Amino acid sequence: MTNWKEENNKLTKTFLFKTFGEAIAWMVKASFEIEKLNHHPEWSNVYNKVHVSLTTHDKGNTITEKDKQLAEILDLL
Amino acid sequence: MTNWKEENNKLTKTFLFKTFGEAIAWMVKASFEIEKLNHHPEWSNVYNKVHVSLTTHDKGNTITEKDKQLAEILDLL
Amino acid sequence: MTNWKEENNKLTKTFLFKTFGEAIAWMVKASFEIEKLNHHPEWSNVYNKVHVSLTTHDKGNTITEKDKQLAEILDLL
Amino acid sequence: MTNWKEENNKLTKTFLFKTFGEAIAWMVKASFEIEKLNHHPEWSNVYNKVHVSLTTHDKGNTITEKDKQLAEILDLL
Repeated sequence: MTNWKEENNKLTKTFLFKTFGEAIAWMVKASFEIEKLNHHPEWSNVYNKVHVSLTTHDKGNTITEKDKQLAEILDLL
Repeated sequence: MTNWKEENNKLTKTFLFKTFGEAIAWMVKASFEIEKLNHHPEWSNVYNKVHVSLTTHDKGNTITEKDKQLAEILDLL
Repeated sequence: MTNWKEENNKLTKTFLFKTFGEAIAWMVKASFEIEKLNHHPEWSNVYNKVHVSLTTHDKGNTITEKDKQLAEILDLL
Repeated sequence: MTNWKEENNKLTKTFLFKTFGEAIAWMVKASFEIEKLNHHPEWSNVYNKVHVSLTTHDKGNTITEKDKQLAEILDLL
């Protein structure tokens, strides 16, 4: 995992793109992987930035292997 | 505008969908309108929810006509 | 299934939208269902139109239950 | 322009991706550029392939500068 921060039991990272369109297209690409894992992030977009926050709700909002797995997948997209 | 709240100089609304996929597809549809207006929201997604927050940064973070215009467009999508 | 044609062992239908953006967003929404079924169409887009063509390659390019299932899902999106 | 073919007054190219999801996400990314140019391709998808065909309808279906411009943009995405 590259450049993820751990804060308040969440793994967070901000991804930066050239344009708004590229940010949205990246979210689409990520969504297919997210669906496959069935592990949904809390993520937000403003213009060319996507901020991702990962935690596992059904494990009492702790960081689990599934969060780390999704973090690694998002890094590789 | 339907069901938008005004708080801290922002217009906010949460849109609810049946599935994660429908939420993401709605964001794509909205993105084309957002690009045309060239007025980008702060918006976030968790599973089947999309929370939208509108303000105009270059007017000192106040709610302007452009925010209301985008709010109405998003309501109609 | 509504308005699907059967020709050359394919189920085909053209979906019409108001804008190019809505056509593309519909393709995204459909893609999540397509991935779940793991049954991929041949489909094409020009401006506000999406033409879908369904057949089952590994059954010798015949129309199978899986094609009808996807056709019904696409009708309901 | 890299690897585009000219046939029947159309510029054509097939883009290949690792997955269906990446193909669709690329179409989304391309769509924002297409909207900006207001020059819409005929393009089709099967699984991890996107076939693009460019021509200018209002110039009697000939290849124009606009087709070449879009071809170059798609190469760079």
